[in-house]
Amino acid sequence: MQQTQPHTVALRERVQNFFDILQDEICQRIEEIDGKARFHEDRWTHIDRGGGRTRVLERGAVFEKAGVNTSSVGGILPESLARQLRKKVQGYTATGISVIFHPESPMIPTVHLNLRYVELERGDAWFGGGTDLTPYYPYPDDVAHFHRVLKGTCDRHDPTYYPKFKQWCDEYFFLKHRNEARGVGGIFFDYLRGDGEKLFTFVQDTGRAFLPAYVPIVERRRGEPWSEREKEFQLIRRGRYVEFNLVYDRGTLFGLETKGRIESILVSLPPFVMWRYGYQPEPDSREAELEQFLKPREWA
Amino acid sequence: MQQTQPHTVALRERVQNFFDILQDEICQRIEEIDGKARFHEDRWTHIDRGGGRTRVLERGAVFEKAGVNTSSVGGILPESLARQLRKKVQGYTATGISVIFHPESPMIPTVHLNLRYVELERGDAWFGGGTDLTPYYPYPDDVAHFHRVLKGTCDRHDPTYYPKFKQWCDEYFFLKHRNEARGVGGIFFDYLRGDGEKLFTFVQDTGRAFLPAYVPIVERRRGEPWSEREKEFQLIRRGRYVEFNLVYDRGTLFGLETKGRIESILVSLPPFVMWRYGYQPEPDSREAELEQFLKPREWA
Repeated sequence: MQQTQPHTVALRERVQNFFDILQDEICQRIEEIDGKARFHEDRWTHIDRGGGRTRVLERGAVFEKAGVNTSSVGGILPESLARQLRKKVQGYTATGISVIFHPESPMIPTVHLNLRYVELERGDAWFGGGTDLTPYYPYPDDVAHFHRVLKGTCDRHDPTYYPKFKQWCDEYFFLKHRNEARGVGGIFFDYLRGDGEKLFTFVQDTGRAFLPAYVPIVERRRGEPWSEREKEFQLIRRGRYVEFNLVYDRGTLFGLETKGRIESILVSLPPFVMWRYGYQPEPDSREAELEQFLKPREWA
Repeated sequence: MQQTQPHTVALRERVQNFFDILQDEICQRIEEIDGKARFHEDRWTHIDRGGGRTRVLERGAVFEKAGVNTSSVGGILPESLARQLRKKVQGYTATGISVIFHPESPMIPTVHLNLRYVELERGDAWFGGGTDLTPYYPYPDDVAHFHRVLKGTCDRHDPTYYPKFKQWCDEYFFLKHRNEARGVGGIFFDYLRGDGEKLFTFVQDTGRAFLPAYVPIVERRRGEPWSEREKEFQLIRRGRYVEFNLVYDRGTLFGLETKGRIESILVSLPPFVMWRYGYQPEPDSREAELEQFLKPREWA
């Protein structure tokens, strides 16, 4: 990394430091909310360089599985990724935080947050990330709240951010083979280049917006009753989550290709999943409503 | 398909006809063995040309999910596939049968059979396919039986087939990201070109060897008792099956890319699956034995 400027090194370290602090904050709050299970931590080292801190909470009162991972890894870009980025094969470092909660109750949506900072050895660096919501039952107020918090955060930095990143999210979290959105979106951004300090402030604010965007939904829905039928529907919908992550998700495929730590990468997969051949919800049921509910629209 | 020779058209039709008959034979035998559930049939048409016959049996006494599908589809090769085949983008037809059984008992292995015949518009045609076994508990006799039946079938056609196709199978059904075999293999072959009639005879014999290779294992293990712990292990191992099919399997990805019928393609996915973070079997348990058991070896 000889060509890297000193201030860039400093930024990378500060980004990594922020992700570690954010990880602590999120884990602490989630343990408080869950009230039963605790996070278990694994520290690991990457095959090439760096490592990470994987924290997982399982079989909680509210969360069936919650993963909050940070990592800072480096190595040589695999050829396929270099081609995709239109870059030469070269050294890279990637620092990130990845969060995913699979609640026990089908009334509480699954949520995902990812923030990352990538630097290439020959120059060039960017931020990427976003957060998105995947409900199983349609509660418009919950989705509106989630999007409003994100819009507020984006607007404080750049009025073009929210519309752009919201659309990008809708496009990204889409299962082409089913012609279906994974969830109700949120924001997604990648290759944010330019004033690193400014962008870092935006990324910090996005990270800090995550709990206020999601926790009120959990508090509102945790008392909601649910039956076996609704749990089953959640398990079937979770199958879509698996399909997306294994077939399309850049982060997952990047991790698999760069020999990342498998258990940390695949902690995003739900604890229990069902695939039922030709499943169709009953007409006019709440399950049938979800299909319409997932169509992209203005939520904020 | 103007350039196609008349005898080739005839071969394609005869291959398709054989797959339909094989489908009937397999479904009938599996219903007899299961004794409780029946196959449900869906006929469908492809977005471009052709269609298929999907048969699924669910929640049986022996089989939690069994899929036996035939299809004959045609269209234009997607660019990515044409590049992979080192061919120009052109019309293709593909005729195949795809079989997968997910038994209820963790003592009975999952099994998979696929046979296919592909023709390109500008000339060139080949057979591909194979069958492989995925046990959850290590019974060497079962695996030896499966491989011996396949070796016998191969040897009747070409003494080089079994060693070549067995190795190809071990290489193909491998989860690179876990450095782990999907199961104990069987045979796998692709791009078999040459004397179409001879190859078709081999493919027919492979199809006919499927029930004799698998059914005795089912009969032998169906009475074996099993507990919750063993069921859970099966569900965790099924996660590997999903990972393989969605990340690596050519047939699955070909189907998704060519806008195949999703429910027919993904019928290969197990009905219930678990992912548990950092799962490790207890040392010296039968579950721990499986890891060694999956290492490729001479079975026949």
